[in-house]
Amino acid sequence: MPVPAPALYPPFNIVRLSHVEYRVTDLAASRKFYVEILGLQVTEEDDTHIYLRAMEERGHHCIVLVQSDTAEVGVLGFKLYDAPDLEKAAAFFADKGLPVDWVERPHMGRTLRTRDPWGIPLEFYVKMERMAPIHQEYRLYNGVKPLRIDHFNMFSADVDASVSFYNEIGFRVTEYTEDDESGKVWAAWMHRKGGVHDVAFTNGTGPRLHHSAFWVPTPLNIIDLLDLMSTTGYVDNIERGPGRHGISNAFFLYVRDPDGHRIEIYCSDYQTVDPDHEAIKWSLKDPQRQTLWGAPAPRSWFEEGSTFEGATTQDSALTAQPIIAP
Amino acid sequence: MPVPAPALYPPFNIVRLSHVEYRVTDLAASRKFYVEILGLQVTEEDDTHIYLRAMEERGHHCIVLVQSDTAEVGVLGFKLYDAPDLEKAAAFFADKGLPVDWVERPHMGRTLRTRDPWGIPLEFYVKMERMAPIHQEYRLYNGVKPLRIDHFNMFSADVDASVSFYNEIGFRVTEYTEDDESGKVWAAWMHRKGGVHDVAFTNGTGPRLHHSAFWVPTPLNIIDLLDLMSTTGYVDNIERGPGRHGISNAFFLYVRDPDGHRIEIYCSDYQTVDPDHEAIKWSLKDPQRQTLWGAPAPRSWFEEGSTFEGATTQDSALTAQPIIAP
Amino acid sequence: MPVPAPALYPPFNIVRLSHVEYRVTDLAASRKFYVEILGLQVTEEDDTHIYLRAMEERGHHCIVLVQSDTAEVGVLGFKLYDAPDLEKAAAFFADKGLPVDWVERPHMGRTLRTRDPWGIPLEFYVKMERMAPIHQEYRLYNGVKPLRIDHFNMFSADVDASVSFYNEIGFRVTEYTEDDESGKVWAAWMHRKGGVHDVAFTNGTGPRLHHSAFWVPTPLNIIDLLDLMSTTGYVDNIERGPGRHGISNAFFLYVRDPDGHRIEIYCSDYQTVDPDHEAIKWSLKDPQRQTLWGAPAPRSWFEEGSTFEGATTQDSALTAQPIIAP
Amino acid sequence: MPVPAPALYPPFNIVRLSHVEYRVTDLAASRKFYVEILGLQVTEEDDTHIYLRAMEERGHHCIVLVQSDTAEVGVLGFKLYDAPDLEKAAAFFADKGLPVDWVERPHMGRTLRTRDPWGIPLEFYVKMERMAPIHQEYRLYNGVKPLRIDHFNMFSADVDASVSFYNEIGFRVTEYTEDDESGKVWAAWMHRKGGVHDVAFTNGTGPRLHHSAFWVPTPLNIIDLLDLMSTTGYVDNIERGPGRHGISNAFFLYVRDPDGHRIEIYCSDYQTVDPDHEAIKWSLKDPQRQTLWGAPAPRSWFEEGSTFEGATTQDSALTAQPIIAP
Repeated sequence: MPVPAPALYPPFNIVRLSHVEYRVTDLAASRKFYVEILGLQVTEEDDTHIYLRAMEERGHHCIVLVQSDTAEVGVLGFKLYDAPDLEKAAAFFADKGLPVDWVERPHMGRTLRTRDPWGIPLEFYVKMERMAPIHQEYRLYNGVKPLRIDHFNMFSADVDASVSFYNEIGFRVTEYTEDDESGKVWAAWMHRKGGVHDVAFTNGTGPRLHHSAFWVPTPLNIIDLLDLMSTTGYVDNIERGPGRHGISNAFFLYVRDPDGHRIEIYCSDYQTVDPDHEAIKWSLKDPQRQTLWGAPAPRSWFEEGSTFEGATTQDSALTAQPIIAP
Repeated sequence: MPVPAPALYPPFNIVRLSHVEYRVTDLAASRKFYVEILGLQVTEEDDTHIYLRAMEERGHHCIVLVQSDTAEVGVLGFKLYDAPDLEKAAAFFADKGLPVDWVERPHMGRTLRTRDPWGIPLEFYVKMERMAPIHQEYRLYNGVKPLRIDHFNMFSADVDASVSFYNEIGFRVTEYTEDDESGKVWAAWMHRKGGVHDVAFTNGTGPRLHHSAFWVPTPLNIIDLLDLMSTTGYVDNIERGPGRHGISNAFFLYVRDPDGHRIEIYCSDYQTVDPDHEAIKWSLKDPQRQTLWGAPAPRSWFEEGSTFEGATTQDSALTAQPIIAP
Repeated sequence: MPVPAPALYPPFNIVRLSHVEYRVTDLAASRKFYVEILGLQVTEEDDTHIYLRAMEERGHHCIVLVQSDTAEVGVLGFKLYDAPDLEKAAAFFADKGLPVDWVERPHMGRTLRTRDPWGIPLEFYVKMERMAPIHQEYRLYNGVKPLRIDHFNMFSADVDASVSFYNEIGFRVTEYTEDDESGKVWAAWMHRKGGVHDVAFTNGTGPRLHHSAFWVPTPLNIIDLLDLMSTTGYVDNIERGPGRHGISNAFFLYVRDPDGHRIEIYCSDYQTVDPDHEAIKWSLKDPQRQTLWGAPAPRSWFEEGSTFEGATTQDSALTAQPIIAP
Repeated sequence: MPVPAPALYPPFNIVRLSHVEYRVTDLAASRKFYVEILGLQVTEEDDTHIYLRAMEERGHHCIVLVQSDTAEVGVLGFKLYDAPDLEKAAAFFADKGLPVDWVERPHMGRTLRTRDPWGIPLEFYVKMERMAPIHQEYRLYNGVKPLRIDHFNMFSADVDASVSFYNEIGFRVTEYTEDDESGKVWAAWMHRKGGVHDVAFTNGTGPRLHHSAFWVPTPLNIIDLLDLMSTTGYVDNIERGPGRHGISNAFFLYVRDPDGHRIEIYCSDYQTVDPDHEAIKWSLKDPQRQTLWGAPAPRSWFEEGSTFEGATTQDSALTAQPIIAP
């Protein structure tokens, strides 16, 4: 089954993914991981919240860490193009019977809080407090030298349906995996900002967040992070990689934070701004789609993820299985 | 003087820069340079034309080499978002009293040919023949491993006026150099596709093309190209670099083709998709804006450029001078 | 048990490992692998032999491929310092009751052919035909851009005994793995030329050649090779890696040639020229000794190797087992 | 004139260059430069001395910074192979009528202090205090991530004579520059430890130390240092580079410490352990010998250097001039 035709003129204009709120059970341990190991910059913090940004970001934050009893994901944030897009978005979600709340968010302007049809908590805004550039303050670069948040990847119990919904709000599929037998989409990568993806959906018990990803300059930064994590007590937090994805062609590494939230370090995908950019289709049976070099992913990578606050998960009905490392 | 306020809703939607036609006096020599040394891929060629694309491009060509008596630039091409944008563009240029011609271009759909107010030949299209992906055919990677065309840089005799015009058609300034004394803009970088620029303008005798640039994966690819050029008879074609620009933060190298057309090899700038992305201002007196590491550019880099077919150049009235290598 | 005290004044002076003869069952297939994929340079070839060198080597060859009915290893070659060292070596081996033959080798001067006590065929020489430098002919660099042969790694059924013998002829242990329970050495790395090793021995059915290794400039060359092999039909020849060894600190990749001979691509170990350089001891139970980042090696890597012509293998009596990937 | 025939059996056995004592006028400023910017590790310090080592070194120090009234070089240190080599060295220097003193040095065993025939202060030792390995403590890597001291480069007023003397004590020429007209050697690179050089001599007012060099993993570490120095107040301390030397094929950068002592950051030369390794000859008129990519060095690089304590300099009689950047 071909992926849906792209929406050239979506109902509202999403610029890019923006931020994620991670609820964590030990804020000090999380701070150490995200700041000392990954190298994100603290823009504000108090006893219960830490706001972080990456080196080339001018928005106030791309991650909010919140001290909580339960490790889960509070919300996924997206930036809209212009003020009227907020109203159009509110109308779109209301029309679908989905929640529409206007909420106060520190450092952000008018903010719409809603959920997708499966309960993923989403928020949309136009203005976030802007910070002075630090991308040329090289003494601050540390850890993996993260440049910017790149994408969210989510488990979905019905990837075809997720793709349809996000396609309707303007995300374009760039690559996807199909189950040859059922003809169903097993996973899909969808973008707004001109790379391979802002969001992706993978078959599995959902909705859950599979991972958030950060862009780094070169594969050598990923090797540096592996060396650092391996010799500072974080060797067990390395889950998969390094490797090159067949899908996206990106060089990758997956690590887990102290609560198990998964972070991908990612570089070298490609430009997709053309509105007629054709999606690339992969077979679920092709192990090179996972890792171009042939190594399958471990079981944990296929099965574990972070739940979303207030969202009930359900299992996927798809019985097709990827190749899993023994 | 602040740079112009950006146009959130420009009169027509330009997706990105697309291609350049280089007129060359020895097609075989140019083929050797662009194909064997730079590593661009030939998509079609005959006795007088060679069409080239870079490794991650799906459009038919980003460079057309044309055998000619005179080395100059035939046209700069831009991709528009949707068919109606062509009509809107035609109306916009006609309204300005600029030429509007619908021309036939091999491998391209309906194409609008016009000029900017200073005579730079421009063409706009929506559809170009799409090619199969080759970004994962690693045996084809060669030379500097060029991934995609990144930007055009032009000399302008009146940069303030050029910035105003291109701003009006949707290009947003990301960084600019100001002459502290006159308050005039000496150079400006302007984007559509979400990087630091699709087009830039530099003070000088204009209009002329200063260079076209190609994006490569890492600085090591640029070092590989330097080693290759230095040992295959092209050492005199190396003009400036390697270095890191203060402006754009990109790692760069400038080389000259056999006719003197200048090509920049470029990597590591940053994402600029936010519509409220603030422009960074540099002083003409700050040598780090040219090269973060302090080395000024050679005189040829400030003075030499490629003329455009049919455009008459004029000198700049600005008397401020950049720092030039002795 | 500490590793043997080093011999400051060994009985003869070995400069470095030099070359290996691989017997292969399909010379054309092997040529494609070593020349087009790995990027070694052909210095001479006929219907049954191909002589190869790496980019910075001035000696005539580091690998000889020989068309044979059986895939095995013909000989391991070592360069001696001066003509008298040949006579001293002959006396040493004769004194041990090991074979001493003076053989004719194309492109090599006077050559001593012998075997170690377990039957590994060895040859020693002082002079090999010298070739013009090609390390600055950058147009010739290809594949993984191999710079020089770095080391041989061998299975031994009695590593303690192998270490004693090679220590006696001047090889110094730089790192070793000990079985904590028996106190026996499970593996050892021993050098002559000032890196981590010229030869290494690993516990297992021996004698067999585990692998030969080539030095490359940076980890990115190894990533390039992975991309190339993955997209030219060699994905199944990738056995282990990329990763960083705990032992040696080197960045590595293991690939198999068309006959299954194992080649390591290797970079970034460290200088060991000091005669008082202390050996580093690792526990067999520490998975980071294999891969600093924690991933164990696959079973094939522990069990498969190339037999030596004319040498009978025996199983190791050591029952300790390394951690193997499930 | 060919360079001297190498000494296969020199009068005493030098393993490698070892350390340099820099006298500095502001110890705090020097500490900041060597520790925070270059990333060397402090092994000991008090009010007047700082001992530093690089990341893979096990010896106690490779640089000693000493607070002084005058910026100069106190001594160049070399490690000998075995205790008898100290006596042989003493005899050799005594026989030449050069000073022989046995001095006390902190952290070093029996130490011979002498001078070469032009007054360069030299010291030789066999044992220096050994430190625990830190090459896998990746949290300590900082600045340019220096791995080890690589070589000393000295101005000599008579390079032919310097080469003869150092050749006599076992240094082998790997590359050299000849003045085509006079047939005199203009510069020479000479090694003991198996790389392109432990010491080099360049024509000029001598004896003076031109620079000490540190080995780093890849060219990207050099780019990181340039970015760091450019944005922390050290842009004027960048003197030359980055580039690739024709001679040695190394990727290089030259920076100046707060007193003007010159430090080279260096990687990617080649292995030279073969006793029959042929020297490569370059013409003084070939600008690619300086920088393979064609850019000449600045005048300061040819003219400025650090004087040695107690050594009187004299001008060179050679009138041939290299190509200097305008």
